[in-house]
Amino acid sequence: MPHPASIITLLTDFGDRDWFVASMKGVILSINPQATIIDLNHRISSHDVQDGAYAWKSCYKYFPDGTIHVAVVDPGVGSERRPLIAKSSRYFFCAPDNGLLTHVFEQEVDMEVREIENKQYRLDAEGHTFDGRDVFAPAAAWLTKQQPFTSYGHVVSDAHRFPVTQPQWEQSALVGEVVYVDVFGNLITNVSLRHVKEVREITKRPNPLIKIAGHSIDGLVGSYAEGAHDSARALINSDGQLEIFCKETSASGLLKVSRQEPVKLS
Amino acid sequence: MPHPASIITLLTDFGDRDWFVASMKGVILSINPQATIIDLNHRISSHDVQDGAYAWKSCYKYFPDGTIHVAVVDPGVGSERRPLIAKSSRYFFCAPDNGLLTHVFEQEVDMEVREIENKQYRLDAEGHTFDGRDVFAPAAAWLTKQQPFTSYGHVVSDAHRFPVTQPQWEQSALVGEVVYVDVFGNLITNVSLRHVKEVREITKRPNPLIKIAGHSIDGLVGSYAEGAHDSARALINSDGQLEIFCKETSASGLLKVSRQEPVKLS
Amino acid sequence: MPHPASIITLLTDFGDRDWFVASMKGVILSINPQATIIDLNHRISSHDVQDGAYAWKSCYKYFPDGTIHVAVVDPGVGSERRPLIAKSSRYFFCAPDNGLLTHVFEQEVDMEVREIENKQYRLDAEGHTFDGRDVFAPAAAWLTKQQPFTSYGHVVSDAHRFPVTQPQWEQSALVGEVVYVDVFGNLITNVSLRHVKEVREITKRPNPLIKIAGHSIDGLVGSYAEGAHDSARALINSDGQLEIFCKETSASGLLKVSRQEPVKLS
Repeated sequence: MPHPASIITLLTDFGDRDWFVASMKGVILSINPQATIIDLNHRISSHDVQDGAYAWKSCYKYFPDGTIHVAVVDPGVGSERRPLIAKSSRYFFCAPDNGLLTHVFEQEVDMEVREIENKQYRLDAEGHTFDGRDVFAPAAAWLTKQQPFTSYGHVVSDAHRFPVTQPQWEQSALVGEVVYVDVFGNLITNVSLRHVKEVREITKRPNPLIKIAGHSIDGLVGSYAEGAHDSARALINSDGQLEIFCKETSASGLLKVSRQEPVKLS
Repeated sequence: MPHPASIITLLTDFGDRDWFVASMKGVILSINPQATIIDLNHRISSHDVQDGAYAWKSCYKYFPDGTIHVAVVDPGVGSERRPLIAKSSRYFFCAPDNGLLTHVFEQEVDMEVREIENKQYRLDAEGHTFDGRDVFAPAAAWLTKQQPFTSYGHVVSDAHRFPVTQPQWEQSALVGEVVYVDVFGNLITNVSLRHVKEVREITKRPNPLIKIAGHSIDGLVGSYAEGAHDSARALINSDGQLEIFCKETSASGLLKVSRQEPVKLS
Repeated sequence: MPHPASIITLLTDFGDRDWFVASMKGVILSINPQATIIDLNHRISSHDVQDGAYAWKSCYKYFPDGTIHVAVVDPGVGSERRPLIAKSSRYFFCAPDNGLLTHVFEQEVDMEVREIENKQYRLDAEGHTFDGRDVFAPAAAWLTKQQPFTSYGHVVSDAHRFPVTQPQWEQSALVGEVVYVDVFGNLITNVSLRHVKEVREITKRPNPLIKIAGHSIDGLVGSYAEGAHDSARALINSDGQLEIFCKETSASGLLKVSRQEPVKLS
């Protein structure tokens, strides 16, 4: 069981031009002025739980044991959806029960999930439109003050998870899809290094042929520097996923491709 | 009288793609490496003092007592406008004398305002174009080093305040206006929960009729989740203000409405 | 020789909508949970080493002695370009060997540069596409844990520097150029206060005539407040450089001018 560190990370779709994130930080520091607050990302596409879940899973595990990770992408705020607090063998998590935790459940073991019910850990504020400030921020901050995890509320055994698409074999090709387009326009797919190895074994080709949006890419390169400016290349990225890129330009723009575009390996 | 904490917040219109905010942070840490620096918001519309004042008032009060709040939206930098330092019963504030403190004066009691005159608290730098780095950042940092508030300069009794529009009764309707459009496109008005209660009492309608830009909204809902995708709804937001929104889409875009648009309650 | 402080600054072109910066922060805090991490700027134009180098030089020197400055604008990641760690009489620097350190070399004395070769200071991760997370972040973090500078790798004496254009005399005019356009649209030039003094001496005009993109500006003013809304003015900015601006509007937009535009003083 992890001991709560005084590090709290924040991931939201609140953007950077209002005061929403700042209010959450103020609430945290009012409870624990010694807390270290780290912004993961506040530019998740508005209300896009899947985008938030993918960004969350891609970075939370680089933080030290005991870190408290808070994610608020919350179109259902004020409705009956439950506010959750969870712990794994390494971390704590606070998020609305709307699927944000989907990938965390895949990656973490020994997850215990509870509803944040205890009113002592809530901010007494007007309205029911800002649980980031009134529920999730104080819940995380009180954890750094050694409040027991079990005191937050009842165990939740049916937390919401959205379906995650896995690559499938169709005849002699493995078909995956683009799951995230990053700021450089790189196309991150749900095809992992393990899948690539499977394709190599089955097809007996050391360098699989990759097809996306009518383009063919012949095998993998080792780094962005081996790319080309005017055509797409593929590599295994820093998270171990197959990624389609162009050198110093946007593959998303060049190939006119976005999330959910199929990618075939054979 | 508040004891200065080592927490300094920053609100500016410097954006996030140059080095202006970073320079301010460097100056603060050079004076006090233990200071905790929190970004409130650096995306205030360029030179828009009213926008900055509204964002400031919406979050500063969530921070712990003794926090030093610095705001720099400063079209008059280098002119005769005075740099100010102020304290209330809870907080300290640093800002140019151009109206940024307007809403703070409304909300805080026992405000004492002084001009930052003492050259010991200024950075000796070239030019007179960057008081954020050369005047306001070091003034705040020296406060965390226990420099006495009275040592900054003379008392100022005529700090600039811009006129704040209050909702008015026109015949049998209360007429307010949109004062802020947030990142989701929600329309925040200057009509508060107190005003809504007043309308209810006078009109004897538990659910007032709200008119904005030719659209009618029948009463208030309790949360964003009760909204509709294709028409506007109204609620009391997390700051206790009447807010017009659309579910998971921009009310500003749908109604083609921005700041200063009138809103009528009857 | 500086003693490493526990302050680490980050400058990248990773933007603010993915998880790349957050991963670097997680790696740093996993090595030293007490580190203070400051964002300089993550909005450097993608792969634009010169833009990054200019932003870096404009703010690093405001930080306290011993600060560790990390910059990652790294189109050559995964290629043979070397990862560098350097120290001057005041600071430490981590960056790829692609010219990012160019202006630092101009400004700092007693620079000692080494390659980051020691695998103990690297994160053991998949792929070779994210040296920000796997090489530069841990290298900086281990320095705050008092790892000796000499233990990182061999001395590098031929670090890459790009050519820096200096203003030149052409007949009776000094010709410089725009080197940076800031968020307000102000045009920062490579003409310094020293150059302006030289022009004054040589031309015997106390107020030099400034020409840019077909516009003439008659001398310098002291602050932005002395500008005009519909025509350009010039001043010495907070870094001691000649800057062309319009009052509360974008000089870049009004004059249709961007980086490398010539500016003549006579």
